[in-house]
Amino acid sequence: MSRLLSTTPRADGFRMPGAIERKKRCWMIWPERTDGWVNGAKPAQRAYTRVATAIATSDPVTMCASQRQFKNARAMLPSHIRVVEMSTDDAWMRDCGPNFVVNDSTSEVRGVDWIFNAWGGLEGGAYFPWDLDDQVARKVLDIEELDRYRAPIVAEGGALQCDGEGTLITTRQCLLNSNRKVGNNDRDIEQALQDYLNVEKIIWLPRGCPFDTTDGHVDDLAVFARPGVVLLTWTEDKSDPQYEVSQEALEILSTVTDARGRRLEIHKVIQPNPICWTAQEIEMVDRVEGYTPRTPGERIAATYINYYIGNMSVFVPTYEDPNDTAGLTAIQRCFPKHKVVGVPGCRDILLCGGSIGCITQPQYAGGRRADARS
Amino acid sequence: MSRLLSTTPRADGFRMPGAIERKKRCWMIWPERTDGWVNGAKPAQRAYTRVATAIATSDPVTMCASQRQFKNARAMLPSHIRVVEMSTDDAWMRDCGPNFVVNDSTSEVRGVDWIFNAWGGLEGGAYFPWDLDDQVARKVLDIEELDRYRAPIVAEGGALQCDGEGTLITTRQCLLNSNRKVGNNDRDIEQALQDYLNVEKIIWLPRGCPFDTTDGHVDDLAVFARPGVVLLTWTEDKSDPQYEVSQEALEILSTVTDARGRRLEIHKVIQPNPICWTAQEIEMVDRVEGYTPRTPGERIAATYINYYIGNMSVFVPTYEDPNDTAGLTAIQRCFPKHKVVGVPGCRDILLCGGSIGCITQPQYAGGRRADARS
Repeated sequence: MSRLLSTTPRADGFRMPGAIERKKRCWMIWPERTDGWVNGAKPAQRAYTRVATAIATSDPVTMCASQRQFKNARAMLPSHIRVVEMSTDDAWMRDCGPNFVVNDSTSEVRGVDWIFNAWGGLEGGAYFPWDLDDQVARKVLDIEELDRYRAPIVAEGGALQCDGEGTLITTRQCLLNSNRKVGNNDRDIEQALQDYLNVEKIIWLPRGCPFDTTDGHVDDLAVFARPGVVLLTWTEDKSDPQYEVSQEALEILSTVTDARGRRLEIHKVIQPNPICWTAQEIEMVDRVEGYTPRTPGERIAATYINYYIGNMSVFVPTYEDPNDTAGLTAIQRCFPKHKVVGVPGCRDILLCGGSIGCITQPQYAGGRRADARS
Repeated sequence: MSRLLSTTPRADGFRMPGAIERKKRCWMIWPERTDGWVNGAKPAQRAYTRVATAIATSDPVTMCASQRQFKNARAMLPSHIRVVEMSTDDAWMRDCGPNFVVNDSTSEVRGVDWIFNAWGGLEGGAYFPWDLDDQVARKVLDIEELDRYRAPIVAEGGALQCDGEGTLITTRQCLLNSNRKVGNNDRDIEQALQDYLNVEKIIWLPRGCPFDTTDGHVDDLAVFARPGVVLLTWTEDKSDPQYEVSQEALEILSTVTDARGRRLEIHKVIQPNPICWTAQEIEMVDRVEGYTPRTPGERIAATYINYYIGNMSVFVPTYEDPNDTAGLTAIQRCFPKHKVVGVPGCRDILLCGGSIGCITQPQYAGGRRADARS
């Protein structure tokens, strides 16, 4: 049974874990909408299958699929991947799924269900309506019979980087955007983040990566590898709009301390070369009202740090790009206990606005406070 | 993970439990189709809510609801009932859901997934299409991460009464009907029943109750209370077509022995007075092709033994009928360890062709071979 709780994770002794902590499973949503994904979502479905199959070597995977796509998803995915029926508006489990929080004393796991408005609602959101996506968290928690906190603010998992020890990194561009605040003031937002993630220190970066369609999610700019250690998307090309953003984030992250008073160790991770929509690809997307249209040559935020950290391995998107090896190497350096695995062909996911991190939601195992592989 | 197995329960040491054995939970499906249920299914939804709420006092309940009805089902049902999204063609979990089988040595539970064709397919089935209902068993088993046997014959849970000790009671009218056999001969059917339920003795009754739209499901004519003890729907009214059927079943059941060589102890349970569709009710059902039409005055098979046996209580349908008390009393006599609970207003379920037994599917707990309440 999944109760809707009127308290907060902080009040009940629950905290958002760091991404390296032990998972019970990984949740994903099968892509299908033909006004967002190229070629009837068929290339994306193959890419999601590659990602799910890879992750399943490390963590159990549950894929949510609509009635229409249930049989196809079941047929394409290996039988050891669980498929459950769920209606959604799109396929970004990191953002519409629950954030699982854990209680170190009781080993209990619960879920935080943020208000979801498709990254901006009627003020620049990616699609309309988004009501099914906003129900995903509660549906997942009901399947798992885990209790639920409905948070009073708009937020997405991709906007939140927690170290599991009281620190959150996020961006003002996203969470303090007028299209997320909807009636709250900055202080309300801060208070809700502290209460629902159980963090003491919020490190605010002014903005996320350019070309990011989420209003600057932190999870392709700066992410925790473990407490005290941050990976930062990087470029040495001063003409690239990413340059200024990475510099700015570096300056802030190298001067702040985290909730435990530590300075952060920062590792730069080169970005892939620019990835852009082609006219041919845009022709292969349904033209309907509701989904943000693309223009030929439009660039898409692309990074290697938008990965999924499993119990055994870290699954990193690759793009058949000359920088792939450097990206994988930089990440492997920060995960001495994990195998870093590149998943090929992630351009087919990226085109719609995200990568491996955006399409996966880790369900933490709770129990003793143990890192994966430790 | 839920594997599709190519062996059989019998080969793997699994057996269909008796209905009195311990359950983990009860599965149901939320009714909604407006061409089968009266008044937009609203009275039925209230009746299902009463049934689910009653059962939840004894066993955990999971309700499957479509995307369209998810929010309404979630709002109408108490929060301790789990709601999971599932598309179906109608709301008869006993017949389209999996039959859970157990292994007494390993405590493992698996599912049998019979071919479902809406009680007769194109040859008198209740509706077309039925593809979503045929996927219900696999979806339930994938949610529960239980392995699955896909049986090679058409069957429904309501057609199968097992005692958990090697005996099956069923009817020729249903399982040997040409609209169920689809290419199999009688011997294939018998073999499949033996293999997939792990029974040695099949007691064939020629037919089920008149007015039953399932082609004579046994579960409103004769059901096991426990091994060796059978409840039989009864009437003393010789002008009622039920009279002859009950007499015929009594004759057979009082002469056979079960798989263990025991004679059966038979308890008669009076039926309610005839329940029929009114012209007014028929007007409140959508007129569409695909769902079998009703005629005013059409009688519906109605019994008290189409119940759900929970771990603590037996939930018996009542119909605001003068015979309700006698029915409840007769059933209570056969369940000395259970509280027999009447659920009122079950006419709203019955109109569409079934009662509490038809809309519930027990998921057995496995483990030590223990009866509920023992």
